[in-house]
Order: sequence, then C-alpha cells, then structure tokens
Amino acid sequence: MDHYRLGLLGYGTVGQGVVELLARTQDECAARAGRPLAVTRIAVGDPTRPRSLPDGCAPRIDGDPLALCHDPDIDLVVELVGGVERPREWIRAALEAGKDVVTANKAVLATHGEELFTVAREHGKLLLFEASVAAAIPILQVLQQGLPAGPIDRLTGILNGTSNRILGRLEQGMSFADALAEAQADGFAESDPTLDLSGWDAGHKLALLTRLVVGTSVSLDQIRVEGIERIEPIDLAFGERHHWKLKSLAELRRTEGGVSLGVGPAWIDAESELATVHDEYNAVLLESETFGTLVLQGKGAGGLPTAGSVVADILRAARGEGSTPAVAGEPVEICDPGLDSARHYVRFRAKDRPGVLARIAGALAEEDVSIASVEQPEATDPDRVPVHLVTHPVPTITLDAALSRLGPNGILSEEPLRIRIADTNVLRVKGPTPCPA
Amino acid sequence: MDHYRLGLLGYGTVGQGVVELLARTQDECAARAGRPLAVTRIAVGDPTRPRSLPDGCAPRIDGDPLALCHDPDIDLVVELVGGVERPREWIRAALEAGKDVVTANKAVLATHGEELFTVAREHGKLLLFEASVAAAIPILQVLQQGLPAGPIDRLTGILNGTSNRILGRLEQGMSFADALAEAQADGFAESDPTLDLSGWDAGHKLALLTRLVVGTSVSLDQIRVEGIERIEPIDLAFGERHHWKLKSLAELRRTEGGVSLGVGPAWIDAESELATVHDEYNAVLLESETFGTLVLQGKGAGGLPTAGSVVADILRAARGEGSTPAVAGEPVEICDPGLDSARHYVRFRAKDRPGVLARIAGALAEEDVSIASVEQPEATDPDRVPVHLVTHPVPTITLDAALSRLGPNGILSEEPLRIRIADTNVLRVKGPTPCPA
Repeated sequence: MDHYRLGLLGYGTVGQGVVELLARTQDECAARAGRPLAVTRIAVGDPTRPRSLPDGCAPRIDGDPLALCHDPDIDLVVELVGGVERPREWIRAALEAGKDVVTANKAVLATHGEELFTVAREHGKLLLFEASVAAAIPILQVLQQGLPAGPIDRLTGILNGTSNRILGRLEQGMSFADALAEAQADGFAESDPTLDLSGWDAGHKLALLTRLVVGTSVSLDQIRVEGIERIEPIDLAFGERHHWKLKSLAELRRTEGGVSLGVGPAWIDAESELATVHDEYNAVLLESETFGTLVLQGKGAGGLPTAGSVVADILRAARGEGSTPAVAGEPVEICDPGLDSARHYVRFRAKDRPGVLARIAGALAEEDVSIASVEQPEATDPDRVPVHLVTHPVPTITLDAALSRLGPNGILSEEPLRIRIADTNVLRVKGPTPCPA
Repeated sequence: MDHYRLGLLGYGTVGQGVVELLARTQDECAARAGRPLAVTRIAVGDPTRPRSLPDGCAPRIDGDPLALCHDPDIDLVVELVGGVERPREWIRAALEAGKDVVTANKAVLATHGEELFTVAREHGKLLLFEASVAAAIPILQVLQQGLPAGPIDRLTGILNGTSNRILGRLEQGMSFADALAEAQADGFAESDPTLDLSGWDAGHKLALLTRLVVGTSVSLDQIRVEGIERIEPIDLAFGERHHWKLKSLAELRRTEGGVSLGVGPAWIDAESELATVHDEYNAVLLESETFGTLVLQGKGAGGLPTAGSVVADILRAARGEGSTPAVAGEPVEICDPGLDSARHYVRFRAKDRPGVLARIAGALAEEDVSIASVEQPEATDPDRVPVHLVTHPVPTITLDAALSRLGPNGILSEEPLRIRIADTNVLRVKGPTPCPA
C-alpha cells in the first residue's frame, strides 16, 4: 500500500522525537492510520550538519522549506520551526498546494489563525495543532470532540511549564535568577525566556483555546497579560503561611459583561485542583453548570510529550479525521478581567520611617480599597522593609488606581507588586449539582 | 429536516437530565448533530406515574422496553435502567433491529461486552458508553481518539465516587456508618451500596478501560477486587500523620509477567496527583514512557454530569462518529497484582497482654516480611488495643500468608487490616523525559 508521506519543517528536539516515535511504533501507527507512514523529506536551517536518524528512515534533507511545502510527493507537512512570519508563509503554501498541515506552533496560529484556518477550509485541508497547547494534554481534542454536552462557563489553565517550574523553585526559596538559569540548563526555558516569563506564551495558547470554547477568534490585545518576573521567594513564603499556592493562570470566564480573558500570577487554595500541578506540568480546568469541573493535567513541554501529540495529529490527518476550527463566527463581547472583584495580595518595599503604613493605608482608602490584613516582618535592610497586605474584594483596576497614588514619593523603595487571590476554593467546596426535576 | 429520533429506556435521574439537557441546548445539539433531535418514546417501570417533561417534549411513554427496541420509528436507543440480564436483551434487540445504542450501564458491558460489541459490529451499528465510566470525564473518548501517541504502561483510577466520598468523611473523623448514611441521604450511594463499597463497581469500570487500553476483553475474575468496608477513622488518622491520603484505586499495570488488574484501597502521597480528588469526583491517571503522566479529573456521579456524557455520545452517534471497541484481539497475559512488591500498612487490634507484639513480629518474620515501623497508641479499651505497622516492600500475597499465621489465636481481637502503600511519589518526582538522540 502507498505510504503516507510526511515532510518535516525543522528537526530539533520535537522533530527528532516525532521521527523516533514514528519509527518505534511504526506497526501501531500503520494500523491506526490505515497505511504505513514515512518521513520522506526534512527541511532544516543547516543541511550540512550531520543528523541522527533511526534505521530505515532516510529522508531527503535540505534547507528549502518552501520547496518542501510545494513538493508533490509529500502528503502532509509538519511545521516544528516556531516563529511567526516564516511559518505563516510555509503553512499557507502547503495548504494551497493541497497538503494537510500539523503544527506545534502556537504563536503563528494565535497571530494569523483566522487567515490560516480560512485557507485550510477553502482548500478542504486539515490544519491541526494539538501539540501547540499544553503539549501532551489532548485539550483541543477534548474541546472539539470529547466534552460532555453543556456550555463551558470558565476555563483556567496552567499553560506555561517554565513559569510553573520557576514558581515552584521560588517556593523552595531559590532566587528568580537561579530558578531561571536552572530551567534553561535543563532545556525547559528558551535562551530568550521573555515569551514564557511575560505570560505571552500562555496568552497565545489562551487565544487558541478561546477560539474553540467560544467559537470565534480573539486578537491578542484583548487578553490582559501579566508576567511572573517580579515574584520573589518572600511572596511565596507569605503564601505558604496562608495555605496558598502561586500559579500563573490563563483564564477565560463568561461574565454578564462578556468574555474576560487574562493571564497572570494568582494565588489559589493549596487544596484546590490546580495546586498539585508541579514542575513543567500543565493543566486545564473546565467548569460548566452542567457537568461541574473537569481537569486535565499532563506534561506541557519536552521532546517526546510534544512529539506524542504531533504524532496523534498526524494519525488523525492520515485517517481524514480531526477538524480545522471554524473561522469568524458570531462576534463575542470581550471584557477586561480587571473589572472583576477579587481579594488581592500586595507586597510593598518601603523605607523604615514613621508614616509609611499611614501613607499606604491612606492611598488605598482614597479609592475605597479595604484592607483585610497587614503583615510587616522584621526587616534586615532598613531601606527595603517588606510590607505584605491583603485586601477585601476589589477590582484590579481600582486597586491599581490606588497603588498609582503612591507613585514615586520617596517612601516606597520599589513599585508595589499585586497578585490576585483566585476563588478556586469556592468552586471546590460547592455541593453536588442538583438534577433538574 | 427529519428529526433524529431517540428512545429512552428508563427515566430516572440521568434520563431526566438527558431530556432536560437536550431541551435546554436544542439549537446547539441540532447544529452539532446536523439535524434536530427528538425524544419520541420512553419505556419506564410504571407508565401510570406522572412524569415531568420540558415544554415541547411529548414522547410516547409506556412500560414495554422490548417494543421500543423494535420500534421502526426510533433511530437510537438510550439504555439508562441498569442491571445486567434485561439490558443485555434490550441492547441486543436494538442493535439487531438496526439502531445505534448509547448506554451508561457499566455492569452489562463488563459482563457481556464481548457479545454485545460483536452484535454491534456485525450489524454495523454503534454501541457507545462514555457515561458508564467516570460520568463526566471523557476518558473513553480520550483513550480511543485523543491520546498522544505511545503505549500506556499504567492506568490508575479513582472510579467510585461513593467510596471516595466516604473515605474523605472518615478522614474528617466520621464513622463509616455515618459516612455511608450521609452519602445515601445525598443521593450518591445506592440503597444497596454493596457494589460501590466492595470495589466491584470500580472493577466493572476497570474491565471496560482495560478493553480499550490493551485491546482485548478481560473477565471479571481476572481482577483482584478489595473493598473499603473495614476502613476506620483511626486508619485515616495514621495516614495523616505520615502525609498519606487513602484512596480506593483501580489499577492496570503492564509488568513483565503480564497485565495486572486490581481495585482496592491504597495509600498515596498527599502531594501526588490523585490526592486532591475529593468527594464524588473521579480521576484517571495515565502513564506512558512517551508522554509522561496525564490526569483527567471530573464528576463521577450525578444526574447532569452523567447526562452530559450520554448526550455527547448521542451527538456522536447522530454524526456517525464514535467507535464501538474491537472484540477479541490478541489474548493478553493477566497476572495477579498481589505478586508486586510494595510497602504495606497493617492495622491490628489485640488484647492488651504481654507477648502480643512478639507474636505479630514472629509471624511476619516467618514469611520474611520485614517491619519498617510500629506505632501503638495509648488505648482506651484493653481488649482492642490498636497496633499500626508499616512493612518494607513485600508482595501482598506474602504478607497475607504471614497474617494468616496469626489466625484465630486468642491474641488478636479482629482480623488484621492491610493497605498497600502505592508508589505514586516515585512517579511524581521523576525528572523530565529525555528526548532520544
């Protein structure tokens, strides 16, 4: 029987994992795909570098990705290079040349998804991207095919393994710089970790999930994104005393004012579902009035876990299954998650002099921000005395307005850091959903 | 466009949930199914009892399930009665009459799955059963369609919400009888809770999962099943001091000697993935050398969560998607999980007299069972002094042989209780999977 012929763009960790996995499970893959699979061509940046390949795998290797996308002897193109503009061109070319495409690239789809999904649908081709969100977790498949019936009211994800791992290390008392260096040394953080730490990597993934949950596309500027760069071990130590865990959460909520979309650090109850998501693991929590909560947790990074999802997409495409998301759809009202009320943690560092607390409390009072508790541990450096404060429920934007009143005033030694306290435990202790009569 | 006509066998909590959900989301369902859906006939035990139905839903209601299965005006039969022999006859009749079947009944499929799946395949009909395992968790869909590529080495499930809820209450110090009565009052435990507490409900579900994971059927007597009936608050209190949680686990492991299948209470590390599965929630942990660990957690009981999965199956059937599991397949070697070594907890109750510990230690030593620690708290009743003991790794069957040596000897005031200590934390702290070179 004719082989299903794969062309790979890129042969890094994930590409090697894909080739290795296809070789190791070739009989199972052939059975599931209905025909044998073969990697027949690979485009790489430096085709002169020697490449390790499994026995029996002898693809043409060159440095011409566009030629691969037009190659009539390729059935499916697997894009594993990353980036935005070049992959956009390649994916478009492959679809227009009548090939299905599988990609692990969230950035290109979050930025140009509308265009690329349209091209795919116009040409009757598949554009599958399971590995681009939460590597090994089949979250797209579950959202598209697997879910119990009933609308999703809320999605909460831990979608960036690097951030999650670093927060875990801060919890153990490691400094941010050391934690980042360790993640880089272990191959989990990019050499330029900006996308991970700033929250934008998770923001891209949230944009893709939003497309599937609400059936329409959102532009990246509709997502409120905050990073973890300013978190320190003293914040985590405060959280531990209150039985909280700190996670960088990507959140979609349906509210009366529209759909709110945000990424940023948030405290969750140490007993709640996402609290045990450690290291480079990712998780997605779905909530529905109908089916309650559903959590999926798995590896969010790594060569083989990502390759596993890429291969699952390849097998789907080979069987003609899987579906390219709809484009356009009803426009959806998007609102700022900063409008929702929540308790907040705020960490100040101030000079040790009279009146500091009065000034802080005064600025908050002027915006009607009510203080629930204050903690000022004994300080070693009189120029940088930490003050930890917990507010009563207040919209983030109101709290920000209050904090901006403190401005550069000679009292604070740095910008205050605020972290929302998510109401996860409210959800967890909710009783069983009653059945309609 | 013609309606897709549904016939319901049974109209209890889940049946009412299905009808309610179909009514509430009828436009979405029609869009997903490609045509409108209508519940046109329901068979119930007592057709004279008044039934609450949503507006616009006016099915024929009678007491003749077999006639419904043969009704030429029905496209799909939804079996929600439960039991084994009668549903076997109905499902068979419906498939032979050329109808697809959706069921939430694990018992009939665990017992007669081989026969019923064969009939379905012979008649080219679907027999879907997502709701029968872990209600709202789309575990069958994920195992059949969603998983990253790569074989599953191990599956660990919390599959019985009633047992999980009762263990949670024992942890809070409630007596077994009170915890059971509360679960029954809240509608979560059956009036005859034997199947839940004995582990057999989870055993049925494990049999169905095994069919999908290893591709063959297993008979129920190949599963080692133990219940939670003898667990007491003092056991949970001991676990808490050791940072353990007690869960009733359903486990499938591929070992060198074959596939081992078991259900029973086991201690897990309080920081491990399944530790935060509370109340009536279910969870499934999949482990693979390729993709690492994947956990799915959601409601394992309740009218609407179960109905949500039934409706998802109905929509799949309406689109001609979903797949009936393969039958037969390669026979697989099944081995006894009792052969695997693990640390064990043992709780004795003995009369307060000299030589008790010596006799216990002696019996264990005779079977080479090595003791790691012993704890004998101050007792209030001298005839029932508790002794808690933790062993070094030992196969369960060896430990059982040692405990049987103690037999009825006038020293113990009751049979010892042993609980395996699962090695979940070994898995959790395992480092990232390296990518093949």
